[in-house]
Amino acid sequence: MDFEKIYQEKKLIIENNIYSYLPSLDEKSIKVYNAMRYSLEAGGKRLRPVLLLSACEFCDGDIYQALPYACAIEMIHTYSLIHDDLPSMDNDDFRRGKPSNHKVYGEAIAILAGDGLLNTAMEIICIDISSSIKNLETTTKKVLAASEIFEASGCKGMIGGQAADIDFEKKELSEDVLNYIHIKKTSALLTACIRAGAILGNADEEVLADLTEFAKNMGLAFQITDDILDVCGNQQLMGKAVGSDAKLQKMTYPSLYGIDNSKAKVKELEKKSLLILDKYKERSDFLKNLLLYLTDRSF
Amino acid sequence: MDFEKIYQEKKLIIENNIYSYLPSLDEKSIKVYNAMRYSLEAGGKRLRPVLLLSACEFCDGDIYQALPYACAIEMIHTYSLIHDDLPSMDNDDFRRGKPSNHKVYGEAIAILAGDGLLNTAMEIICIDISSSIKNLETTTKKVLAASEIFEASGCKGMIGGQAADIDFEKKELSEDVLNYIHIKKTSALLTACIRAGAILGNADEEVLADLTEFAKNMGLAFQITDDILDVCGNQQLMGKAVGSDAKLQKMTYPSLYGIDNSKAKVKELEKKSLLILDKYKERSDFLKNLLLYLTDRSF
Repeated sequence: MDFEKIYQEKKLIIENNIYSYLPSLDEKSIKVYNAMRYSLEAGGKRLRPVLLLSACEFCDGDIYQALPYACAIEMIHTYSLIHDDLPSMDNDDFRRGKPSNHKVYGEAIAILAGDGLLNTAMEIICIDISSSIKNLETTTKKVLAASEIFEASGCKGMIGGQAADIDFEKKELSEDVLNYIHIKKTSALLTACIRAGAILGNADEEVLADLTEFAKNMGLAFQITDDILDVCGNQQLMGKAVGSDAKLQKMTYPSLYGIDNSKAKVKELEKKSLLILDKYKERSDFLKNLLLYLTDRSF
Repeated sequence: MDFEKIYQEKKLIIENNIYSYLPSLDEKSIKVYNAMRYSLEAGGKRLRPVLLLSACEFCDGDIYQALPYACAIEMIHTYSLIHDDLPSMDNDDFRRGKPSNHKVYGEAIAILAGDGLLNTAMEIICIDISSSIKNLETTTKKVLAASEIFEASGCKGMIGGQAADIDFEKKELSEDVLNYIHIKKTSALLTACIRAGAILGNADEEVLADLTEFAKNMGLAFQITDDILDVCGNQQLMGKAVGSDAKLQKMTYPSLYGIDNSKAKVKELEKKSLLILDKYKERSDFLKNLLLYLTDRSF
Protein backbone atom coordinates (compact mmCIF):
# COMPACT_ATOMS: atom_id res chain seq x y z
CA MET A 1 0.00 0.00 0.00
CA ASP A 2 1.07 3.58 -0.62
CA PHE A 3 0.75 4.76 2.98
CA GLU A 4 2.01 8.28 2.31
CA LYS A 5 -0.50 8.82 -0.49
CA ILE A 6 -3.50 7.61 1.52
CA TYR A 7 -2.42 9.67 4.53
CA GLN A 8 -2.11 12.78 2.37
CA GLU A 9 -5.53 12.17 0.83
CA LYS A 10 -7.16 12.06 4.27
CA LYS A 11 -5.20 15.09 5.43
CA LEU A 12 -6.37 16.97 2.37
CA ILE A 13 -10.01 16.13 3.08
CA ILE A 14 -9.55 17.73 6.50
CA GLU A 15 -7.74 20.78 5.18
CA ASN A 16 -10.24 21.30 2.39
CA ASN A 17 -13.16 21.28 4.82
CA ILE A 18 -12.13 22.45 8.27
CA TYR A 19 -12.35 26.19 7.58
CA SER A 20 -15.94 25.88 6.44
CA TYR A 21 -16.79 24.89 10.01
CA LEU A 22 -15.44 28.14 11.46
CA PRO A 23 -18.17 30.62 12.39
CA SER A 24 -18.58 33.50 9.97
CA LEU A 25 -17.80 36.59 12.00
CA ASP A 26 -18.23 40.24 11.17
CA GLU A 27 -15.57 42.93 11.22
CA LYS A 28 -15.90 43.71 14.92
CA SER A 29 -14.85 40.30 16.14
CA ILE A 30 -12.64 39.44 13.19
CA LYS A 31 -9.51 39.39 15.34
CA VAL A 32 -10.54 36.29 17.25
CA TYR A 33 -11.57 34.64 13.97
CA ASN A 34 -8.18 35.44 12.47
CA ALA A 35 -6.44 34.07 15.54
CA MET A 36 -8.43 30.82 15.41
CA ARG A 37 -7.72 30.46 11.72
CA TYR A 38 -4.03 31.29 12.15
CA SER A 39 -3.47 28.31 14.43
CA LEU A 40 -5.64 25.99 12.37
CA GLU A 41 -3.61 26.98 9.31
CA ALA A 42 -0.30 26.38 11.06
CA GLY A 43 -0.68 22.85 9.81
CA GLY A 44 0.87 19.92 11.54
CA LYS A 45 0.19 16.30 10.78
CA ARG A 46 -3.60 16.48 11.27
CA LEU A 47 -2.99 13.21 13.09
CA ARG A 48 -6.13 13.23 15.22
CA PRO A 49 -8.67 13.79 12.45
CA VAL A 50 -6.81 11.36 10.16
CA LEU A 51 -7.00 8.76 12.94
CA LEU A 52 -10.73 9.37 13.34
CA LEU A 53 -11.39 9.03 9.61
CA SER A 54 -9.15 5.95 9.39
CA ALA A 55 -10.93 4.18 12.24
CA CYS A 56 -14.26 4.94 10.59
CA GLU A 57 -12.98 3.58 7.29
CA PHE A 58 -11.52 0.50 9.00
CA CYS A 59 -15.10 -0.28 10.09
CA ASP A 60 -16.42 0.33 6.57
CA GLY A 61 -18.11 3.54 7.65
CA ASP A 62 -18.69 6.65 5.54
CA ILE A 63 -15.81 9.00 6.27
CA TYR A 64 -17.81 11.99 5.09
CA GLN A 65 -20.32 11.32 7.85
CA ALA A 66 -17.39 11.36 10.29
CA LEU A 67 -15.91 14.56 8.88
CA PRO A 68 -17.59 17.04 11.29
CA TYR A 69 -16.24 15.02 14.24
CA ALA A 70 -12.77 14.88 12.69
CA CYS A 71 -12.74 18.66 12.20
CA ALA A 72 -14.13 19.22 15.71
CA ILE A 73 -11.33 17.14 17.21
CA GLU A 74 -8.67 19.05 15.26
CA MET A 75 -10.15 22.26 16.68
CA ILE A 76 -9.96 20.82 20.20
CA HIS A 77 -6.35 19.78 19.65
CA THR A 78 -5.50 23.21 18.21
CA TYR A 79 -7.11 25.06 21.13
CA SER A 80 -5.08 22.95 23.56
CA LEU A 81 -1.86 23.93 21.77
CA ILE A 82 -2.75 27.64 21.88
CA HIS A 83 -3.43 27.50 25.62
CA ASP A 84 -0.41 25.25 26.33
CA ASP A 85 1.91 27.73 24.60
CA LEU A 86 0.80 30.69 26.76
CA PRO A 87 3.45 32.35 28.95
CA SER A 88 1.81 31.09 32.14
CA MET A 89 1.75 27.54 30.78
CA ASP A 90 4.66 26.15 28.73
CA ASN A 91 5.69 29.60 27.48
CA ASP A 92 6.56 28.52 23.94
CA ASP A 93 7.22 31.25 21.39
CA PHE A 94 7.08 28.90 18.43
CA ARG A 95 4.70 26.22 17.30
CA ARG A 96 5.03 24.29 14.07
CA GLY A 97 7.80 26.64 12.97
CA LYS A 98 5.64 29.76 13.28
CA PRO A 99 5.29 32.25 16.14
CA SER A 100 2.76 30.89 18.60
CA ASN A 101 -0.72 32.40 18.72
CA HIS A 102 -0.13 34.80 21.62
CA LYS A 103 3.07 36.10 20.02
CA VAL A 104 1.01 37.23 17.03
CA TYR A 105 -2.34 38.18 18.57
CA GLY A 106 -1.51 38.86 22.22
CA GLU A 107 -2.43 36.76 25.21
CA ALA A 108 -6.03 37.92 25.59
CA ILE A 109 -7.04 37.12 22.02
CA ALA A 110 -5.05 33.84 22.17
CA ILE A 111 -7.02 32.74 25.24
CA LEU A 112 -10.29 33.67 23.50
CA ALA A 113 -9.21 31.94 20.28
CA GLY A 114 -8.66 28.76 22.29
CA ASP A 115 -12.02 29.12 23.99
CA GLY A 116 -13.57 29.82 20.60
CA LEU A 117 -12.15 26.68 19.02
CA LEU A 118 -13.38 24.46 21.87
CA ASN A 119 -16.80 26.08 21.69
CA THR A 120 -16.90 25.75 17.91
CA ALA A 121 -16.20 22.02 18.23
CA MET A 122 -19.37 21.66 20.26
CA GLU A 123 -21.35 23.83 17.83
CA ILE A 124 -20.22 21.71 14.88
CA ILE A 125 -21.40 18.57 16.64
CA CYS A 126 -24.74 20.07 17.70
CA ILE A 127 -25.43 21.15 14.13
CA ASP A 128 -24.45 17.75 12.78
CA ILE A 129 -26.65 15.87 15.25
CA SER A 130 -29.58 18.18 14.44
CA SER A 131 -29.16 17.46 10.74
CA SER A 132 -30.09 13.80 11.13
CA ILE A 133 -32.11 13.95 14.32
CA LYS A 134 -35.00 11.86 13.02
CA ASN A 135 -32.81 8.80 12.46
CA LEU A 136 -32.53 7.21 15.91
CA GLU A 137 -29.66 4.88 15.04
CA THR A 138 -27.56 7.66 13.53
CA THR A 139 -28.32 10.09 16.35
CA THR A 140 -27.38 7.48 18.95
CA LYS A 141 -23.96 6.83 17.46
CA LYS A 142 -23.31 10.54 16.94
CA VAL A 143 -24.11 11.35 20.57
CA LEU A 144 -21.89 8.45 21.67
CA ALA A 145 -19.04 9.74 19.50
CA ALA A 146 -19.48 13.25 20.92
CA SER A 147 -19.38 11.86 24.46
CA GLU A 148 -16.12 10.03 23.72
CA ILE A 149 -14.56 13.20 22.38
CA PHE A 150 -15.60 15.56 25.18
CA GLU A 151 -14.82 13.11 27.95
CA ALA A 152 -11.31 12.69 26.53
CA SER A 153 -10.76 16.44 26.08
CA GLY A 154 -12.04 17.23 29.57
CA CYS A 155 -10.81 17.00 33.12
CA LYS A 156 -10.74 13.23 33.14
CA GLY A 157 -8.56 13.41 30.03
CA MET A 158 -6.52 16.12 28.38
CA ILE A 159 -7.23 19.02 30.75
CA GLY A 160 -6.61 16.85 33.82
CA GLY A 161 -3.33 15.66 32.28
CA GLN A 162 -2.18 19.19 31.53
CA ALA A 163 -3.16 20.31 35.06
CA ALA A 164 -1.15 17.45 36.58
CA ASP A 165 1.77 18.22 34.25
CA ILE A 166 1.86 21.81 35.54
CA ASP A 167 1.29 20.82 39.14
CA PHE A 168 4.13 18.28 39.09
CA GLU A 169 6.70 20.53 37.39
CA LYS A 170 9.88 20.63 39.41
CA LYS A 171 8.60 17.90 41.71
CA GLU A 172 10.20 14.49 42.13
CA LEU A 173 9.73 11.99 39.31
CA SER A 174 7.67 8.85 39.65
CA GLU A 175 6.63 6.33 37.03
CA ASP A 176 3.07 6.41 38.28
CA VAL A 177 2.70 10.17 37.81
CA LEU A 178 4.52 10.14 34.49
CA ASN A 179 2.20 7.48 33.07
CA TYR A 180 -0.80 9.31 34.43
CA ILE A 181 0.17 12.54 32.70
CA HIS A 182 1.02 10.86 29.39
CA ILE A 183 -2.16 8.82 29.32
CA LYS A 184 -4.40 11.74 30.23
CA LYS A 185 -2.68 14.46 28.29
CA THR A 186 -2.11 12.72 24.97
CA SER A 187 -3.30 9.15 24.85
CA ALA A 188 -6.88 9.89 25.97
CA LEU A 189 -7.66 12.15 23.01
CA LEU A 190 -5.89 9.86 20.51
CA THR A 191 -7.91 6.94 21.84
CA ALA A 192 -11.09 9.01 21.57
CA CYS A 193 -10.29 9.71 17.90
CA ILE A 194 -10.09 5.99 17.19
CA ARG A 195 -13.16 5.15 19.28
CA ALA A 196 -15.31 7.98 17.90
CA GLY A 197 -14.34 7.04 14.34
CA ALA A 198 -15.12 3.39 14.99
CA ILE A 199 -18.47 4.21 16.61
CA LEU A 200 -19.42 6.43 13.66
CA GLY A 201 -18.39 3.57 11.37
CA ASN A 202 -20.75 1.16 13.19
CA ALA A 203 -18.02 -0.97 14.80
CA ASP A 204 -19.16 -4.07 16.66
CA GLU A 205 -17.99 -4.64 20.25
CA GLU A 206 -15.00 -6.79 19.41
CA VAL A 207 -13.63 -4.39 16.83
CA LEU A 208 -14.19 -1.44 19.16
CA ALA A 209 -12.32 -3.21 21.97
CA ASP A 210 -9.39 -4.13 19.70
CA LEU A 211 -9.11 -0.65 18.25
CA THR A 212 -9.25 0.85 21.74
CA GLU A 213 -6.39 -1.37 22.92
CA PHE A 214 -4.42 -0.51 19.79
CA ALA A 215 -5.04 3.20 20.35
CA LYS A 216 -3.97 3.17 24.00
CA ASN A 217 -0.63 1.58 23.19
CA MET A 218 -0.16 3.84 20.21
CA GLY A 219 -0.96 6.94 22.29
CA LEU A 220 1.66 6.12 24.89
CA ALA A 221 4.25 5.21 22.22
CA PHE A 222 3.52 8.52 20.50
CA GLN A 223 4.02 10.55 23.68
CA ILE A 224 7.28 8.80 24.62
CA THR A 225 8.51 9.41 21.07
CA ASP A 226 7.68 13.10 21.53
CA ASP A 227 9.64 13.15 24.79
CA ILE A 228 12.66 11.56 23.08
CA LEU A 229 12.46 14.03 20.19
CA ASP A 230 12.38 16.89 22.70
CA VAL A 231 15.80 15.73 23.89
CA CYS A 232 17.45 14.64 20.67
CA GLY A 233 15.21 15.89 17.89
CA ASN A 234 15.91 18.66 15.50
CA GLN A 235 14.22 22.02 15.90
CA GLN A 236 13.41 22.33 12.22
CA LEU A 237 11.68 18.95 12.11
CA MET A 238 9.83 19.57 15.37
CA GLY A 239 8.76 23.11 14.51
CA LYS A 240 9.39 24.21 18.07
CA ALA A 241 12.30 24.67 20.45
CA VAL A 242 14.06 21.45 21.39
CA GLY A 243 14.81 20.99 25.09
CA SER A 244 11.71 22.84 26.27
CA ASP A 245 10.75 20.03 28.66
CA ALA A 246 14.16 20.16 30.35
CA LYS A 247 13.93 23.94 30.54
CA LEU A 248 10.64 23.61 32.44
CA GLN A 249 12.15 20.76 34.47
CA LYS A 250 9.33 18.56 33.26
CA MET A 251 9.23 14.91 33.98
CA THR A 252 9.67 12.86 30.81
CA TYR A 253 10.41 9.25 29.91
CA PRO A 254 14.02 10.01 28.96
CA SER A 255 14.64 11.94 32.19
CA LEU A 256 13.24 9.03 34.20
CA TYR A 257 14.59 6.02 32.27
CA GLY A 258 17.22 7.40 29.90
CA ILE A 259 17.06 7.56 26.12
CA ASP A 260 17.85 3.90 25.37
CA ASN A 261 15.23 2.51 27.72
CA SER A 262 12.69 4.98 26.37
CA LYS A 263 13.39 3.83 22.82
CA ALA A 264 13.02 0.22 23.95
CA LYS A 265 9.68 1.08 25.57
CA VAL A 266 8.47 2.58 22.29
CA LYS A 267 9.47 -0.57 20.44
CA GLU A 268 7.65 -2.72 22.99
CA LEU A 269 4.43 -0.69 22.72
CA GLU A 270 4.73 -0.68 18.94
CA LYS A 271 4.97 -4.48 18.89
CA LYS A 272 2.01 -4.86 21.24
CA SER A 273 -0.15 -2.56 19.11
CA LEU A 274 0.67 -4.28 15.85
CA LEU A 275 -0.11 -7.68 17.33
CA ILE A 276 -3.64 -6.61 18.28
CA LEU A 277 -4.43 -5.81 14.66
CA ASP A 278 -2.83 -8.93 13.15
CA LYS A 279 -6.09 -10.80 12.93
CA TYR A 280 -7.54 -8.13 10.64
CA LYS A 281 -4.89 -8.84 7.99
CA GLU A 282 -4.66 -6.31 5.10
CA ARG A 283 -7.62 -4.39 6.43
CA SER A 284 -5.35 -3.07 9.19
CA ASP A 285 -2.44 -2.12 6.91
CA PHE A 286 -3.12 1.59 7.03
CA LEU A 287 -3.48 1.76 10.82
CA LYS A 288 -0.34 -0.34 11.28
CA ASN A 289 1.63 1.89 8.95
CA LEU A 290 0.26 4.92 10.73
CA LEU A 291 1.57 3.61 14.03
CA LEU A 292 5.02 3.00 12.54
CA TYR A 293 5.00 6.45 10.99
CA LEU A 294 4.38 7.96 14.42
CA THR A 295 6.98 5.99 16.32
CA ASP A 296 9.69 6.15 13.67
CA ARG A 297 9.47 9.90 13.16
CA SER A 298 13.14 10.64 13.48
CA PHE A 299 15.15 8.19 15.42
CA MET B 1 -46.23 36.71 44.85
CA ASP B 2 -43.21 36.31 47.07
CA PHE B 3 -40.60 36.91 44.39
CA GLU B 4 -37.62 36.69 46.72
CA LYS B 5 -38.74 33.31 48.08
CA ILE B 6 -39.32 31.77 44.66
CA TYR B 7 -35.98 33.11 43.41
CA GLN B 8 -34.17 31.64 46.39
CA GLU B 9 -35.88 28.27 45.89
CA LYS B 10 -34.66 28.09 42.30
CA LYS B 11 -31.19 29.26 43.28
CA LEU B 12 -31.08 26.55 45.92
CA ILE B 13 -32.01 23.86 43.40
CA ILE B 14 -28.97 24.95 41.36
CA GLU B 15 -26.64 25.11 44.34
CA ASN B 16 -27.77 21.76 45.66
CA ASN B 17 -27.11 20.06 42.36
CA ILE B 18 -24.38 21.81 40.40
CA TYR B 19 -21.42 20.19 42.18
CA SER B 20 -22.71 16.72 41.39
CA TYR B 21 -22.08 17.53 37.72
CA LEU B 22 -18.38 18.19 38.27
CA PRO B 23 -16.14 15.32 37.15
CA SER B 24 -14.75 13.19 39.98
CA LEU B 25 -11.01 13.62 39.73
CA ASP B 26 -8.22 11.79 41.50
CA GLU B 27 -5.47 13.30 43.61
CA LYS B 28 -3.14 14.06 40.69
CA SER B 29 -5.46 16.50 38.96
CA ILE B 30 -7.24 17.69 42.08
CA LYS B 31 -5.87 21.20 41.73
CA VAL B 32 -7.90 21.95 38.60
CA TYR B 33 -10.97 20.41 40.24
CA ASN B 34 -10.49 22.62 43.29
CA ALA B 35 -10.05 25.68 41.08
CA MET B 36 -13.26 24.91 39.16
CA ARG B 37 -15.14 24.36 42.37
CA TYR B 38 -13.70 27.50 43.97
CA SER B 39 -15.21 29.72 41.31
CA LEU B 40 -18.50 27.84 41.21
CA GLU B 41 -18.73 28.25 44.99
CA ALA B 42 -18.01 31.97 44.83
CA GLY B 43 -21.73 32.31 44.47
CA GLY B 44 -23.32 35.20 42.71
CA LYS B 45 -26.95 35.50 41.75
CA ARG B 46 -27.11 32.27 39.70
CA LEU B 47 -29.07 34.48 37.35
CA ARG B 48 -28.53 32.45 34.19
CA PRO B 49 -29.64 29.06 35.51
CA VAL B 50 -32.56 30.68 37.37
CA LEU B 51 -33.62 32.31 34.10
CA LEU B 52 -33.42 28.98 32.31
CA LEU B 53 -35.51 27.19 34.92
CA SER B 54 -38.01 30.07 35.05
CA ALA B 55 -38.53 30.06 31.30
CA CYS B 56 -39.07 26.31 31.41
CA GLU B 57 -41.57 26.70 34.22
CA PHE B 58 -43.31 29.57 32.39
CA CYS B 59 -44.01 27.05 29.62
CA ASP B 60 -45.24 24.45 32.12
CA GLY B 61 -42.15 22.32 31.59
CA ASP B 62 -40.44 20.09 34.14
CA ILE B 63 -37.63 22.14 35.68
CA TYR B 64 -35.80 19.01 36.78
CA GLN B 65 -35.50 17.98 33.14
CA ALA B 66 -33.96 21.40 32.47
CA LEU B 67 -31.56 21.20 35.42
CA PRO B 68 -28.52 19.78 33.55
CA TYR B 69 -28.80 22.66 31.04
CA ALA B 70 -29.14 25.21 33.84
CA CYS B 71 -26.03 23.85 35.57
CA ALA B 72 -24.14 23.68 32.26
CA ILE B 73 -24.91 27.34 31.58
CA GLU B 74 -23.75 28.38 35.05
CA MET B 75 -20.47 26.56 34.33
CA ILE B 76 -20.12 28.41 31.03
CA HIS B 77 -20.78 31.74 32.76
CA THR B 78 -18.28 30.90 35.51
CA TYR B 79 -15.57 29.90 33.03
CA SER B 80 -16.05 33.20 31.20
CA LEU B 81 -15.54 35.11 34.47
CA ILE B 82 -12.35 33.18 35.28
CA HIS B 83 -10.87 33.92 31.86
CA ASP B 84 -12.12 37.55 31.85
CA ASP B 85 -10.38 38.21 35.18
CA LEU B 86 -6.96 37.04 33.94
CA PRO B 87 -4.15 39.61 33.92
CA SER B 88 -4.05 39.68 30.12
CA MET B 89 -7.80 40.29 29.95
CA ASP B 90 -9.54 42.58 32.49
CA ASN B 91 -6.91 41.95 35.18
CA ASP B 92 -9.35 41.82 38.10
CA ASP B 93 -7.99 40.65 41.45
CA PHE B 94 -11.41 40.24 43.00
CA ARG B 95 -14.63 38.60 41.92
CA ARG B 96 -17.72 38.40 44.05
CA GLY B 97 -15.76 39.69 47.02
CA LYS B 98 -13.18 36.91 46.89
CA PRO B 99 -9.75 36.80 45.26
CA SER B 100 -10.18 35.86 41.61
CA ASN B 101 -9.29 32.36 40.47
CA HIS B 102 -5.79 33.12 39.19
CA LYS B 103 -4.91 34.97 42.39
CA VAL B 104 -5.53 31.75 44.31
CA TYR B 105 -4.48 29.03 41.87
CA GLY B 106 -2.12 30.82 39.50
CA GLU B 107 -2.74 31.73 35.89
CA ALA B 108 -2.06 28.32 34.36
CA ILE B 109 -4.53 26.44 36.55
CA ALA B 110 -7.07 29.28 36.18
CA ILE B 111 -6.92 28.97 32.39
CA LEU B 112 -7.34 25.19 32.66
CA ALA B 113 -10.17 25.56 35.19
CA GLY B 114 -11.99 27.76 32.69
CA ASP B 115 -11.36 25.28 29.88
CA GLY B 116 -12.50 22.51 32.22
CA LEU B 117 -15.79 24.22 33.05
CA LEU B 118 -16.62 24.82 29.40
CA ASN B 119 -15.74 21.23 28.56
CA THR B 120 -17.76 19.93 31.51
CA ALA B 121 -20.80 21.86 30.24
CA MET B 122 -20.51 19.89 27.01
CA GLU B 123 -20.09 16.60 28.85
CA ILE B 124 -23.16 17.24 31.02
CA ILE B 125 -25.27 17.85 27.94
CA CYS B 126 -23.92 14.83 26.03
CA ILE B 127 -24.68 12.59 29.02
CA ASP B 128 -28.15 14.07 29.41
CA ILE B 129 -28.99 13.63 25.73
CA SER B 130 -27.74 10.02 25.87
CA SER B 131 -29.97 9.30 28.86
CA SER B 132 -33.16 9.76 26.87
CA ILE B 133 -31.88 9.04 23.38
CA LYS B 134 -34.72 6.71 22.42
CA ASN B 135 -37.37 9.41 22.80
CA LEU B 136 -37.18 11.37 19.53
CA GLU B 137 -39.23 14.33 20.75
CA THR B 138 -37.16 14.77 23.91
CA THR B 139 -33.86 14.32 22.08
CA THR B 140 -34.87 16.89 19.49
CA LYS B 141 -35.64 19.58 22.03
CA LYS B 142 -32.51 18.80 24.04
CA VAL B 143 -30.28 19.12 20.97
CA LEU B 144 -32.04 22.36 20.08
CA ALA B 145 -31.49 23.72 23.60
CA ALA B 146 -27.81 22.70 23.44
CA SER B 147 -27.44 24.48 20.10
CA GLU B 148 -28.93 27.67 21.57
CA ILE B 149 -26.52 27.56 24.49
CA PHE B 150 -23.33 26.87 22.54
CA GLU B 151 -24.11 29.30 19.76
CA ALA B 152 -24.62 32.02 22.38
CA SER B 153 -21.45 31.15 24.30
CA GLY B 154 -19.34 30.97 21.13
CA CYS B 155 -17.77 33.37 18.71
CA LYS B 156 -21.08 34.65 17.39
CA GLY B 157 -22.02 35.44 21.00
CA MET B 158 -20.10 35.79 24.21
CA ILE B 159 -16.57 35.06 22.96
CA GLY B 160 -17.01 37.37 19.97
CA GLY B 161 -18.30 40.10 22.31
CA GLN B 162 -15.36 39.74 24.66
CA ALA B 163 -12.93 39.76 21.72
CA ALA B 164 -14.49 42.96 20.38
CA ASP B 165 -14.44 44.46 23.87
CA ILE B 166 -10.69 43.87 24.11
CA ASP B 167 -10.02 44.94 20.55
CA PHE B 168 -11.89 48.24 20.99
CA GLU B 169 -10.32 49.19 24.36
CA LYS B 170 -8.90 52.69 24.17
CA LYS B 171 -10.44 53.23 20.74
CA GLU B 172 -13.02 55.85 19.91
CA LEU B 173 -16.55 55.27 21.14
CA SER B 174 -19.46 54.57 18.84
CA GLU B 175 -23.00 53.52 19.63
CA ASP B 176 -22.86 50.79 17.04
CA VAL B 177 -19.82 49.10 18.57
CA LEU B 178 -21.09 49.54 22.11
CA ASN B 179 -24.39 47.86 21.31
CA TYR B 180 -22.58 45.11 19.46
CA ILE B 181 -20.37 44.33 22.46
CA HIS B 182 -23.23 44.45 24.97
CA ILE B 183 -25.51 42.28 22.88
CA LYS B 184 -22.83 39.70 22.13
CA LYS B 185 -21.07 39.67 25.47
CA THR B 186 -24.03 39.56 27.82
CA SER B 187 -27.39 39.62 26.14
CA ALA B 188 -26.73 36.62 23.87
CA LEU B 189 -26.19 34.17 26.72
CA LEU B 190 -29.09 35.59 28.77
CA THR B 191 -31.34 35.22 25.75
CA ALA B 192 -30.09 31.66 25.26
CA CYS B 193 -31.01 30.85 28.88
CA ILE B 194 -34.58 31.95 28.25
CA ARG B 195 -34.80 30.26 24.85
CA ALA B 196 -33.23 26.99 25.99
CA GLY B 197 -35.53 26.88 29.02
CA ALA B 198 -38.56 27.59 26.86
CA ILE B 199 -37.59 24.94 24.31
CA LEU B 200 -37.08 22.37 27.06
CA GLY B 201 -40.49 23.37 28.41
CA ASN B 202 -42.13 22.70 25.01
CA ALA B 203 -42.89 26.35 24.20
CA ASP B 204 -44.93 26.97 21.06
CA GLU B 205 -43.66 29.43 18.45
CA GLU B 206 -45.52 32.47 19.75
CA VAL B 207 -44.38 32.02 23.33
CA LEU B 208 -40.81 31.40 22.18
CA ALA B 209 -40.86 34.58 20.10
CA ASP B 210 -42.28 36.67 22.97
CA LEU B 211 -39.82 35.29 25.50
CA THR B 212 -36.94 35.93 23.09
CA GLU B 213 -37.97 39.55 22.65
CA PHE B 214 -38.35 39.92 26.40
CA ALA B 215 -34.92 38.40 26.97
CA LYS B 216 -33.15 40.63 24.45
CA ASN B 217 -34.45 43.80 26.06
CA MET B 218 -33.73 42.44 29.51
CA GLY B 219 -30.18 41.49 28.52
CA LEU B 220 -29.36 44.97 27.29
CA ALA B 221 -31.01 46.59 30.33
CA PHE B 222 -28.97 44.30 32.57
CA GLN B 223 -25.68 45.22 30.91
CA ILE B 224 -26.36 48.97 30.99
CA THR B 225 -27.25 48.62 34.67
CA ASP B 226 -23.90 46.90 35.22
CA ASP B 227 -22.12 49.74 33.44
CA ILE B 228 -23.89 52.30 35.65
CA LEU B 229 -23.01 50.34 38.78
CA ASP B 230 -19.38 50.25 37.69
CA VAL B 231 -19.40 54.06 37.85
CA CYS B 232 -21.60 54.71 40.87
CA GLY B 233 -22.06 51.37 42.58
CA ASN B 234 -20.55 50.33 45.83
CA GLN B 235 -17.67 47.89 45.92
CA GLN B 236 -19.18 45.80 48.68
CA LEU B 237 -22.44 45.32 46.81
CA MET B 238 -20.66 44.62 43.53
CA GLY B 239 -18.06 42.27 45.00
CA LYS B 240 -15.41 43.71 42.71
CA ALA B 241 -13.55 46.94 42.24
CA VAL B 242 -15.70 49.85 41.12
CA GLY B 243 -14.35 51.94 38.28
CA SER B 244 -12.61 49.04 36.55
CA ASP B 245 -14.16 49.90 33.17
CA ALA B 246 -12.81 53.45 33.36
CA LYS B 247 -9.41 52.11 34.43
CA LEU B 248 -9.29 49.99 31.28
CA GLN B 249 -10.69 52.91 29.29
CA LYS B 250 -13.56 50.71 28.26
CA MET B 251 -16.47 52.06 26.33
CA THR B 252 -19.64 51.95 28.41
CA TYR B 253 -23.13 53.44 28.22
CA PRO B 254 -22.40 56.05 30.90
CA SER B 255 -19.17 57.11 29.19
CA LEU B 256 -21.00 57.50 25.90
CA TYR B 257 -24.34 58.96 27.03
CA GLY B 258 -23.84 60.02 30.64
CA ILE B 259 -25.44 58.51 33.75
CA ASP B 260 -28.88 60.10 33.43
CA ASN B 261 -29.41 59.08 29.85
CA SER B 262 -28.20 55.57 30.67
CA LYS B 263 -30.71 55.30 33.49
CA ALA B 264 -33.44 56.52 31.13
CA LYS B 265 -32.40 53.87 28.60
CA VAL B 266 -32.72 51.16 31.26
CA LYS B 267 -36.22 52.41 32.13
CA GLU B 268 -37.20 52.39 28.47
CA LEU B 269 -35.97 48.80 27.95
CA GLU B 270 -37.64 47.74 31.18
CA LYS B 271 -40.97 49.15 30.01
CA LYS B 272 -40.64 47.48 26.62
CA SER B 273 -39.87 44.10 28.19
CA LEU B 274 -42.76 44.22 30.62
CA LEU B 275 -45.20 45.14 27.87
CA ILE B 276 -44.31 42.03 25.87
CA LEU B 277 -45.34 39.80 28.76
CA ASP B 278 -48.56 41.66 29.65
CA LYS B 279 -50.77 39.31 27.68
CA TYR B 280 -49.64 36.38 29.84
CA LYS B 281 -51.09 38.01 32.97
CA GLU B 282 -50.13 36.40 36.33
CA ARG B 283 -48.25 33.65 34.58
CA SER B 284 -45.54 36.20 33.80
CA ASP B 285 -45.32 37.67 37.32
CA PHE B 286 -42.08 35.94 38.21
CA LEU B 287 -40.27 36.90 34.99
CA LYS B 288 -41.48 40.49 35.31
CA ASN B 289 -40.29 40.70 38.89
CA LEU B 290 -37.00 39.16 37.86
CA LEU B 291 -36.49 41.89 35.29
CA LEU B 292 -37.23 44.60 37.87
CA TYR B 293 -34.89 42.94 40.34
CA LEU B 294 -32.09 43.12 37.76
CA THR B 295 -32.62 46.70 36.69
CA ASP B 296 -33.29 48.12 40.15
CA ARG B 297 -30.24 46.56 41.79
CA SER B 298 -28.95 49.69 43.47
CA PHE B 299 -29.99 52.92 41.94
